[in-house]
Amino acid sequence: MDDSAPHLLHSIFAWLVGASQVLGVASVVLTGVWMGHYRGGFSWDGSEQEFNLHPLCMVLGLVFLQGDAILVYRVFRSEPKKNLKLLHAIIHLLALTLSIIGFVAVFDFHRAAKIPDMYSLHSWCGMATLVLFCLQWVMGLLFFLFPVASSWIRASYLPIHVFCGLVLLIMAIGSCLLGITEKLLFSITSTYALFAPEGVLANILGLLLVCFGMLIGYLTTRKEYRCLPNPEEESLSVHFKTLTEGGSPSSP
Amino acid sequence: MDDSAPHLLHSIFAWLVGASQVLGVASVVLTGVWMGHYRGGFSWDGSEQEFNLHPLCMVLGLVFLQGDAILVYRVFRSEPKKNLKLLHAIIHLLALTLSIIGFVAVFDFHRAAKIPDMYSLHSWCGMATLVLFCLQWVMGLLFFLFPVASSWIRASYLPIHVFCGLVLLIMAIGSCLLGITEKLLFSITSTYALFAPEGVLANILGLLLVCFGMLIGYLTTRKEYRCLPNPEEESLSVHFKTLTEGGSPSSP
Repeated sequence: MDDSAPHLLHSIFAWLVGASQVLGVASVVLTGVWMGHYRGGFSWDGSEQEFNLHPLCMVLGLVFLQGDAILVYRVFRSEPKKNLKLLHAIIHLLALTLSIIGFVAVFDFHRAAKIPDMYSLHSWCGMATLVLFCLQWVMGLLFFLFPVASSWIRASYLPIHVFCGLVLLIMAIGSCLLGITEKLLFSITSTYALFAPEGVLANILGLLLVCFGMLIGYLTTRKEYRCLPNPEEESLSVHFKTLTEGGSPSSP
Repeated sequence: MDDSAPHLLHSIFAWLVGASQVLGVASVVLTGVWMGHYRGGFSWDGSEQEFNLHPLCMVLGLVFLQGDAILVYRVFRSEPKKNLKLLHAIIHLLALTLSIIGFVAVFDFHRAAKIPDMYSLHSWCGMATLVLFCLQWVMGLLFFLFPVASSWIRASYLPIHVFCGLVLLIMAIGSCLLGITEKLLFSITSTYALFAPEGVLANILGLLLVCFGMLIGYLTTRKEYRCLPNPEEESLSVHFKTLTEGGSPSSP
């Protein structure tokens, strides 16, 4: 291989990670501007300002932080796995806490305004995402951070955990897009079709979220950016490869 | 490896493929029922019945057929690659044709009803998906079916083509969910929150589409279900591995 190839790969990787962070932060800022400037800001009193915390918490927690928790395994891939697992779990816990605050905010607002809960596709997808996210976090904790299962079961579960993590990020982004559409059609019904600035801003927010998800997905699935092998992972890989392929073990 | 393991893997694979087809067909049928029973059926005269062709064409073309075109490489993975490529391209062409009919239907309806185009997040995501889908199809044709590029470039492009294919399927499903939400909020504004049967049916359609996407994603990304190597692919792999990893070549 050309000597410059690893350097080029690393350089592209750094740019893509940087771009993902710009997109993530921009999404959070745009959500804040939308709710703060166009929708009257934030409060915790059952009013529409309490509802405004819902989009902010979901974009910050369930999208940006969840995405970054996944990215930990790529950005710090030469660090010891134990530290990575801990950081991954802590960021996810932060994401989960923010998401629950966001959910409480919307249910509180609905109760105060006597709006029915859980009738829309947005609410169905959002609730499914949160429930599965909790499940995934607990499973991750039990399987990898305080491993109660055998190494064979952990090795079998690892690719499912990785796949489900990406699916959950995609579901979170999808739920956000549905929420953006719902909010716009409720709030600016008559001016949305006239390209009202609020509508354009929220649409751009939607596209930024899509691009953020695409970048995280790309960085996570490209094998060049995968974690460096360590003895623990290698041992898992031995079991897994032997069981599923019958081949000789190698590092993942 | 235990002798029963490959048989079990094959059996799970067959069940998952079957489930994906049930979900895909159910999605198309539900879209037909929604538009046919609740929205007044189909026609081609600029009326709302012409609009009704839009969801049907998009779910059938851009979701179900696109998903099945991707699945071809897993379901018939022991067939010659050339045949698979051709089938993959043909199903995608069918998907593209249906998608264009679906797009024409909605623009026709908008023109007749004097509704502005391209203001909503659904339209932005949908248009981005179709444009990128066309680009991906043409690139696939040039790189793999009538290969004009060198084997090195083709090998480098292959993982990007695979990644973009999955992204496009996810974008198509996301756009459908946005379309479902938009349509429900326009059509049954007052009864959606009261769990009107039409709303519940359309929400279920949304969940079926999500499950379809998850299954296709799972079947496509699990390495156990990948294509069997053939001389052509092996040759690509040699180039690619040598260039990117500096390692000894092996089958993918």
